[in-house]
Amino acid sequence: MQLTPRVKEILSWYESDNPGTKGNLARILMEGKLGGTGRLVILPVDQGFEHGPARSFAPNPAAYDPRYHFELAIEAGLSAYAAPLGMIEAGASTFAGAIPTILKVNSSNSLSTTKDQAVTGGVDDALRLGCAAIGFTIYPGSEYQFEMMEELRELTAEAKAAGLAVVVWSYPRGPMLDKVGETALDICAYAAHMAALIGAHIIKVKPPTDAIFLDAAKKTYEKAPVPDISELSGRIKHVVQACFNGRRIVVFSGGESGTSEAMTAMAKGIHQGGGNGSIIGRNTFQRPKADALKLLSDIVDTYKAEVAHDPR
Amino acid sequence: MQLTPRVKEILSWYESDNPGTKGNLARILMEGKLGGTGRLVILPVDQGFEHGPARSFAPNPAAYDPRYHFELAIEAGLSAYAAPLGMIEAGASTFAGAIPTILKVNSSNSLSTTKDQAVTGGVDDALRLGCAAIGFTIYPGSEYQFEMMEELRELTAEAKAAGLAVVVWSYPRGPMLDKVGETALDICAYAAHMAALIGAHIIKVKPPTDAIFLDAAKKTYEKAPVPDISELSGRIKHVVQACFNGRRIVVFSGGESGTSEAMTAMAKGIHQGGGNGSIIGRNTFQRPKADALKLLSDIVDTYKAEVAHDPR
Amino acid sequence: MQLTPRVKEILSWYESDNPGTKGNLARILMEGKLGGTGRLVILPVDQGFEHGPARSFAPNPAAYDPRYHFELAIEAGLSAYAAPLGMIEAGASTFAGAIPTILKVNSSNSLSTTKDQAVTGGVDDALRLGCAAIGFTIYPGSEYQFEMMEELRELTAEAKAAGLAVVVWSYPRGPMLDKVGETALDICAYAAHMAALIGAHIIKVKPPTDAIFLDAAKKTYEKAPVPDISELSGRIKHVVQACFNGRRIVVFSGGESGTSEAMTAMAKGIHQGGGNGSIIGRNTFQRPKADALKLLSDIVDTYKAEVAHDPR
Amino acid sequence: MQLTPRVKEILSWYESDNPGTKGNLARILMEGKLGGTGRLVILPVDQGFEHGPARSFAPNPAAYDPRYHFELAIEAGLSAYAAPLGMIEAGASTFAGAIPTILKVNSSNSLSTTKDQAVTGGVDDALRLGCAAIGFTIYPGSEYQFEMMEELRELTAEAKAAGLAVVVWSYPRGPMLDKVGETALDICAYAAHMAALIGAHIIKVKPPTDAIFLDAAKKTYEKAPVPDISELSGRIKHVVQACFNGRRIVVFSGGESGTSEAMTAMAKGIHQGGGNGSIIGRNTFQRPKADALKLLSDIVDTYKAEVAHDPR
Amino acid sequence: MQLTPRVKEILSWYESDNPGTKGNLARILMEGKLGGTGRLVILPVDQGFEHGPARSFAPNPAAYDPRYHFELAIEAGLSAYAAPLGMIEAGASTFAGAIPTILKVNSSNSLSTTKDQAVTGGVDDALRLGCAAIGFTIYPGSEYQFEMMEELRELTAEAKAAGLAVVVWSYPRGPMLDKVGETALDICAYAAHMAALIGAHIIKVKPPTDAIFLDAAKKTYEKAPVPDISELSGRIKHVVQACFNGRRIVVFSGGESGTSEAMTAMAKGIHQGGGNGSIIGRNTFQRPKADALKLLSDIVDTYKAEVAHDPR
Repeated sequence: MQLTPRVKEILSWYESDNPGTKGNLARILMEGKLGGTGRLVILPVDQGFEHGPARSFAPNPAAYDPRYHFELAIEAGLSAYAAPLGMIEAGASTFAGAIPTILKVNSSNSLSTTKDQAVTGGVDDALRLGCAAIGFTIYPGSEYQFEMMEELRELTAEAKAAGLAVVVWSYPRGPMLDKVGETALDICAYAAHMAALIGAHIIKVKPPTDAIFLDAAKKTYEKAPVPDISELSGRIKHVVQACFNGRRIVVFSGGESGTSEAMTAMAKGIHQGGGNGSIIGRNTFQRPKADALKLLSDIVDTYKAEVAHDPR
Repeated sequence: MQLTPRVKEILSWYESDNPGTKGNLARILMEGKLGGTGRLVILPVDQGFEHGPARSFAPNPAAYDPRYHFELAIEAGLSAYAAPLGMIEAGASTFAGAIPTILKVNSSNSLSTTKDQAVTGGVDDALRLGCAAIGFTIYPGSEYQFEMMEELRELTAEAKAAGLAVVVWSYPRGPMLDKVGETALDICAYAAHMAALIGAHIIKVKPPTDAIFLDAAKKTYEKAPVPDISELSGRIKHVVQACFNGRRIVVFSGGESGTSEAMTAMAKGIHQGGGNGSIIGRNTFQRPKADALKLLSDIVDTYKAEVAHDPR
Repeated sequence: MQLTPRVKEILSWYESDNPGTKGNLARILMEGKLGGTGRLVILPVDQGFEHGPARSFAPNPAAYDPRYHFELAIEAGLSAYAAPLGMIEAGASTFAGAIPTILKVNSSNSLSTTKDQAVTGGVDDALRLGCAAIGFTIYPGSEYQFEMMEELRELTAEAKAAGLAVVVWSYPRGPMLDKVGETALDICAYAAHMAALIGAHIIKVKPPTDAIFLDAAKKTYEKAPVPDISELSGRIKHVVQACFNGRRIVVFSGGESGTSEAMTAMAKGIHQGGGNGSIIGRNTFQRPKADALKLLSDIVDTYKAEVAHDPR
Repeated sequence: MQLTPRVKEILSWYESDNPGTKGNLARILMEGKLGGTGRLVILPVDQGFEHGPARSFAPNPAAYDPRYHFELAIEAGLSAYAAPLGMIEAGASTFAGAIPTILKVNSSNSLSTTKDQAVTGGVDDALRLGCAAIGFTIYPGSEYQFEMMEELRELTAEAKAAGLAVVVWSYPRGPMLDKVGETALDICAYAAHMAALIGAHIIKVKPPTDAIFLDAAKKTYEKAPVPDISELSGRIKHVVQACFNGRRIVVFSGGESGTSEAMTAMAKGIHQGGGNGSIIGRNTFQRPKADALKLLSDIVDTYKAEVAHDPR
Repeated sequence: MQLTPRVKEILSWYESDNPGTKGNLARILMEGKLGGTGRLVILPVDQGFEHGPARSFAPNPAAYDPRYHFELAIEAGLSAYAAPLGMIEAGASTFAGAIPTILKVNSSNSLSTTKDQAVTGGVDDALRLGCAAIGFTIYPGSEYQFEMMEELRELTAEAKAAGLAVVVWSYPRGPMLDKVGETALDICAYAAHMAALIGAHIIKVKPPTDAIFLDAAKKTYEKAPVPDISELSGRIKHVVQACFNGRRIVVFSGGESGTSEAMTAMAKGIHQGGGNGSIIGRNTFQRPKADALKLLSDIVDTYKAEVAHDPR
């Protein structure tokens, strides 16, 4: 496989990683319809853990079957498929080599009254299942944030030594944050930056709003305002900046649910802001497969379009 | 031993497991009167830990002797026998090879004021005692759920590497749940799904009622109602669906105590709904042996009956 | 050394244990004046830790010297001597081979305001000191019970692998229990049963009263009353039943202090009820040595007497 | 490289360290414009973790790029560059051998409501990234201080065995301290002393005020007043004294932000008091590069000046 | 080196220890002016950690230098020098072989609001620094006592396996104890006894008062009163008795500060009571060196005097 110059450039950002990890990042970046562009779309299916099976799959019952998601990701020409242990185990052999997989190694659930998570998978699992990466969620701001970061640090060190990539979901929450704070621009950029500092290769955050939440940060943002903060692309640019000035891959989640138009528009904003792509679960697997494929095709096309002034 | 096509099919669901684990699943699925059918009946005897010896065994004092349960399971032609360390140790040599055993590796008790458990056995114990599987209980929703899931994850990884199978008792409880919630259909399906995601080979839940408990889930169930929710078989079908659309073995507990007729009727509902079987303790070993053998024979016969429209 | 048929029978109960552990159980069962009878009397000296040195040894100052207890146990022809690390270390070499020792590996003290214990010894210590067994106390019902059981499980697995025996002191206490509850018959039988389930070879409990404490258990005991509950021998029989129907060795503590007559009478009740013996500390080492030897001689003789209808 | 007598003298203070650690201390002490003088200026960039990316880098957006800081430190001729994992990983290969790096292995953040930190890097990371030292922050006085000190002790033992140096940021805070207390002279000296006792090679504290905070200490300071306490150099001398009478390297942070004059004046006080140097982050990378280089040049020159009565 | 009969006798008490540990005990017992007598005087310098540098060293600023304490102990002809990691590291090489050192491996500090400690050194450190022993403080009665005892148990097992000796500071404190309780005779004897039970070779406690604190103990002490309780020598005798009837080395701390006469008188009481010696820090290093040497000489002479009726 001949790597494109863009992918080679991206790999060059990860200069401390061993060839194993670089190879797994390349597997993701060269996969599917966006292969070689430096953009990527990932299918994540951990909603069954977070919200329960019916809330996740009843709208499209074919999705109860773990094989469905492998097939959807492959048919849509996506970059990777991310899921918890059981979901990966149920298809890892059938679809071995067909699409890079990301083993989601921690999970929360809707029956919890605390903002903690359980580690439910390990690097050993990722290796035996042929995964390209592990995925881990941190909740910066939670009472459990330091324990989660320490779990992540240990898994990250182990994954890097084993030649795997590390994808970090960075979702701020906790006593200091309300709903506005969780997606405010300063908080979102901070969450992305912390993931980068802990050593993530790929960072996943939510698309930020234009709110600035922390009092201590307001002064800074007043003095040096984010250009085009009112547009998604402007806010994305700021998050990209917070990811080592664009030298770490950052993707954005699709959010709860939206129309196809809204999803495509969001992808456009991410693309124009220099974000590396989307990670979209519910908005795809909860639709009939044909609809999902159409939407994913539109999103992929969006990321293939040229960007007037690519900030990266 | 020639595996039946049905057992081969079931083993094919566990495509990521090593031959050791597949062999132990096969040992359970090929054992006893239901051997080869894909259905199974398991005898669990952990009530002495959970409720004390007299509440468990005084109704049938022969059951104080650990050998009694091995004999009952063998004579009844059951699929496997599950118990805590001491119970297995007390018969493992005498009955070596006579019936697959499941080492229950955690336990709570009636003197506890918290919803936690103690890990009281390990994979090393299961191996030296010749067990086919380890068994572990999680309480999704408990304040201790994440710790329990992490213990399970570690034991599961160790068991799979050692070629053992993993049976998970998934019993929801905790601050968010009342008695109705603990057995509500949505909660039961969620509990089964989480066990599947953590990597269980065999999942044990309670037979669900027709209640829908979580407000967040109600909308889903209204939009996409569970067919035949008023009948046990309909509710079982939904739980089976939550277990990777039927690609994980799921068995149901017999509950506190009931008449033979009630127990057989329950088995019929489980069978018709596509559940893989029953796991019945108190309702068997608390009766005189002859009665227990008669009841188990009836239940086994129920699972041998053909199902008009087998959902699997 | 020719094992007696009775000892061979007892060893046969421990069918899962390795020859090392069986050999150490045999060392205890063949030692001293009761050697070969299946009965045993153990000298435990952990009161210094639990209550302080003066409360333990001032009544008989010779007992401040750790060598005193080795000598007492040997001269009295007892089965084993149990004590914490420092006490064993202080005589292990001088009395090597002279009497089986049990290293008590956890301890509480009277300055504690919680119902927890510290692990103060390990299997490595037991091995280097030539001990036949480790001893561990659990407090079923305590807020720390699960941690204690998990510590015990780990030490037990390690001890069994190293060919040692495991003696468990099972003393119920905690928020659900009052003074009556701690020695009630149902609770005592439950505590003994849990120790058996966790894998103890020798179980130590307090002699139970005729109280039935747990509401949930009362119905059971009303339906199936314990015969001769008003006599100690009847209550002992029930505890023996709770120890795998007599297939685990169970010994009873002597209690705080009593007359020689009371101690001998208690031994008689234990003996007639099928208990395996006594574990008597303060009632012996707090008397002048001659008195202690006389009392122990009487108790030993009691256990040598034939039992009209031996329940085992 | 020929070590200067002064550097040899300093290395002689670390008489228990292995040649690997001494070599890494020498790398730092011989680096840059102050190489060989026994003074040092370190660039620390962990503010992104502590305060977020915009508050740290928006004033000088070039600083969003991790390579910027390597370049700044190298161009300014500093002694070392300290940062968390991700920042070091992003330039470790490009700038390998160009400047000694210190891997900051724990971090807090502004979204935390507790005075704890997460360990986010390890000795294994420091070794694979070619770092000369690890850096660790303790909060003496915090509710988490003992856990932090134990983490530090373990990392320190591991680092010393691996031939790395250990830099400890000792920042007092917690229930017993208010804002005045955190920088009071007695507390600052105490914090420095504890870092020395735990085995730090290089100690970083804040420049102390002339407050004496602990009642228990006031008597001491009244009896034996610190000479020239009203001048920074006098207070620095006391802190140096608390660092094994000057036999440990101690550097002082630059504080929140100040004019170039203020920064240079502070360096002069540190220098005259016998402090080994400055560790200055925000005051340099938040200015345009030219300004930062000018300021750093002034500070370096300050440390090159001769001291009338060098207390060391 | 020819061991004296007395030292040989003392070593015989430690019959379970390996030659490495016995050799290190011998190093301490044969060192200095009291070498061979079975008495010993130890210099402990952990006050910098416990109370801060100025409160410890400002009265005699030479003591800020870690080398001072090595020199003081050597010049005074003491038996051993005990200090935390940093203090030992700073002189271990220069004074290698010149005096046995005891690495104090845990420490508290005056900024803590809890009665816990941090482990700040390990057996690996003690070995690489050539120490003869590790030192550890427990607070019997503290909410953290069980954790501390478990840390001590692990370090003790490791130290004994490595041929080191173990010195335990046993200082009662916690919710059940007030100031009177912390030094009451029954509590002090209990604390010493627990240290012996955990396996300490050398026990350090405070000189007890004549108070009897625990209600449960008062009855015992009324029945069997401690002879000469009103004199220090009588109380020391009781503590010695609590240390395995004198078969463990027990030394007493010098307390906060006192006149030379008071210190010498205290040593006399300890000596006459059969205590093995003194461990004196602040009372020596806070005086000018000449005064300290004079005082230590007087104390050493006290321990050289013959005892009319040596209780040991």
